[in-house]
Amino acid sequence: MMDASIKEGKYAADICSIREAHARISSFIHKTPVITSESLNAMCNRSLYFKCECFQKGGAFKFRGACNAIYSLDDAQAAKGVVTHSSGNHAAALSLAAKSRGIPAYVVIPKNAPKCKVDNVIRYDGQVIWSEATMKSREDTASKVSRETGAVLIHPYNDKRIISGQGTISVELLEQAPQIDTIIVPISGGGLISGVALAAKSMNPRIRVLAAEPRGANDAAQSKAAGRIITLPETNTIADGLRASLGEFTWPVVRDLVDDVIVVDDTDIVEAMRLCYEILKVAVEPSGAIGLAAVRSESFMSNPAWKDCNHIGIILSGGNVDLGVLWDSYRK
Amino acid sequence: MMDASIKEGKYAADICSIREAHARISSFIHKTPVITSESLNAMCNRSLYFKCECFQKGGAFKFRGACNAIYSLDDAQAAKGVVTHSSGNHAAALSLAAKSRGIPAYVVIPKNAPKCKVDNVIRYDGQVIWSEATMKSREDTASKVSRETGAVLIHPYNDKRIISGQGTISVELLEQAPQIDTIIVPISGGGLISGVALAAKSMNPRIRVLAAEPRGANDAAQSKAAGRIITLPETNTIADGLRASLGEFTWPVVRDLVDDVIVVDDTDIVEAMRLCYEILKVAVEPSGAIGLAAVRSESFMSNPAWKDCNHIGIILSGGNVDLGVLWDSYRK
Repeated sequence: MMDASIKEGKYAADICSIREAHARISSFIHKTPVITSESLNAMCNRSLYFKCECFQKGGAFKFRGACNAIYSLDDAQAAKGVVTHSSGNHAAALSLAAKSRGIPAYVVIPKNAPKCKVDNVIRYDGQVIWSEATMKSREDTASKVSRETGAVLIHPYNDKRIISGQGTISVELLEQAPQIDTIIVPISGGGLISGVALAAKSMNPRIRVLAAEPRGANDAAQSKAAGRIITLPETNTIADGLRASLGEFTWPVVRDLVDDVIVVDDTDIVEAMRLCYEILKVAVEPSGAIGLAAVRSESFMSNPAWKDCNHIGIILSGGNVDLGVLWDSYRK
Repeated sequence: MMDASIKEGKYAADICSIREAHARISSFIHKTPVITSESLNAMCNRSLYFKCECFQKGGAFKFRGACNAIYSLDDAQAAKGVVTHSSGNHAAALSLAAKSRGIPAYVVIPKNAPKCKVDNVIRYDGQVIWSEATMKSREDTASKVSRETGAVLIHPYNDKRIISGQGTISVELLEQAPQIDTIIVPISGGGLISGVALAAKSMNPRIRVLAAEPRGANDAAQSKAAGRIITLPETNTIADGLRASLGEFTWPVVRDLVDDVIVVDDTDIVEAMRLCYEILKVAVEPSGAIGLAAVRSESFMSNPAWKDCNHIGIILSGGNVDLGVLWDSYRK
């Protein structure tokens, strides 16, 4: 087990900024339930605790960070609104949080984003600006909007306010299921897992935090192995929310506090979605189901380092999946 | 408002038998969460509180009554097992409860039951005995099994133990959301709504309890209008769990304590399933979605009697729906 002493100021966020975030946002967010299934426990031979962030406002955990960012702005900043670029859930979440404060949200969305995620942005009165699918086009477009409107750029993950907001999941989860000894978290840009790991390891230094990552976008696994941020020229996975690369604020946390990255095949993600639907009765998007796929994977099950992970928190990070897409992937 | 004073012994169950049931089963059941959605509240212009019995063990509220019945048996009775006939969720629930006590469950299932419900019975080690789809064939087959094995017949709804078990939902719901002034409940044989109404009206005599029923199986609405139990020669609805008729134990409760029956078209049930999936992120079977369909219906929305129903509990009674069935009904 790694040294988990977390000094204030060492990382982009800490337990204080996370507790502050929780105080700031708790009247706006849902305290999402933790559900369990004896069928899935038997299947995995562990006790699993599913934190249902798919029931969060906007359909994903992203509302926590977005809400913290929006309500951290002073009135003068807030008046000019916010801008972001996102493959979807952060965009919807930021739109919803901005709407609740009555300020504009400008959202740069890549043309290949899933329809239901774009619909959510529009539903929450976000102003959509389309970009190409590349990260460069997304960033350039967002910068241009910020210059023209004065809107504050809220990065989807490489931002202290966002990381602190996502960390509030651990505060709730460890209160709802204090027996948890391990948390498995989807990894993309690292905002979620950074917040979760910083909070959880401050509250209980012995807890394990494992990342779950699709094989077709395994930059975090490669980065951990190389000891530096690796970015991939392209990604290929059904988990559309997990295509981003680590940022300068999230990488140190992933490097130091994430105990391992479990790499999962897309077929196993689809199977995990099916189990969530059929057994848990919960609609989970591919990115959200990856934690269950990871705990069922051979690389987790057969690894002696994890054989005493008996009480495992799994973050069902989001539920924004078109029913047709779920069905198409399911019957293949 | 009707007189809601409920004398002990007047009906098949009462608040005492329901509280006893809760004490008996609460270590076996899930205390299911109540979730809310601002989007659905805005759509319905009321505050809705969804009691997620689709997350109950076995995927439906039926486990409450089944568990209460199984654990009410003395050891000698229990040793011979239990038998029932059911279109599915009660059968799975009874199998699961019997399995937890280590006793056999014989389950008579009509040949037209949905595959996922039959699979659940088998998963929980229930012994399946097929019958024709008619109620007479189901009852005759179950009686025969009972004679041959000595198994105790546990009726799906016309049974004090079952009604008391289902009533535990109200005990939890009114603790989780005490502001509720109305509860909308799917109606079939009446076991669920009897338990819910008896408990809720004992705890708060001013609460309204409304039944939701499919137009193609509207025997409860007809019974309330006629003042006696009406049975239909045939039923036609996508809500496969709502085809049964009221029984002698449930009818008096429905007659006296259910404030109204809201009749809903199948197309509106399918639309409600879609909303549960897309907005709540919850897999709900047609019978489970009917409460949301009812609250959105013209006959509810335009009825002046219900204009002050502001905080409405909706019981999402079950989640056992094949994904393919959901998708087929959805894209029509």
